[in-house]
Amino acid sequence: MNKPKYHIFVCTSSRPTGQQKGFCHAKASVELMEAFMEEIEERGLGSEVFVTNTGCLGICEKGPIVIVYPDNVWYGAVTVDDVEEIMEEHIEGGRPLARLIF
Amino acid sequence: MNKPKYHIFVCTSSRPTGQQKGFCHAKASVELMEAFMEEIEERGLGSEVFVTNTGCLGICEKGPIVIVYPDNVWYGAVTVDDVEEIMEEHIEGGRPLARLIF
Repeated sequence: MNKPKYHIFVCTSSRPTGQQKGFCHAKASVELMEAFMEEIEERGLGSEVFVTNTGCLGICEKGPIVIVYPDNVWYGAVTVDDVEEIMEEHIEGGRPLARLIF
Repeated sequence: MNKPKYHIFVCTSSRPTGQQKGFCHAKASVELMEAFMEEIEERGLGSEVFVTNTGCLGICEKGPIVIVYPDNVWYGAVTVDDVEEIMEEHIEGGRPLARLIF
């Protein structure tokens, strides 16, 4: 298996037990994840950029949370409208978005 | 917020929609996650080592999957019995476990 150059994690508040609750999920994080998947496909980056949903990260008041590894960059209050800019600037340009980092 | 020195992701097969199915979940990945949480607490590493469950990573036949970032190390077929060694060797010792990497 090829390991990803970037791995984007989107909190969708999925509890390990399968229960789903919390702010990120309420704040349309599933649509956020889908937006990342679409952008990755459109840009032909499917083999080097992965996107995975996560369980609660414990900082719900800053959600929806998006983490980009291996950079260890944490974005807060991310909306679907921010996805294109994150992809363009950070993932393709190598410049993390200061305005969304917390 | 302090960012983690290590972030351990454990696939618990949580779908973004809340549905939960797949090999990792069937293979006791929830107990695996709990074992990491206990080890982290016992070693007093709670402020620098995070553990988060994830949705399906798409490589179910190699599950349960554990990823350690920012190292981008992918472990497969991880069991509860491996947790102490991963914590001791990789997280505390800085030496990823070759026998579990795929």
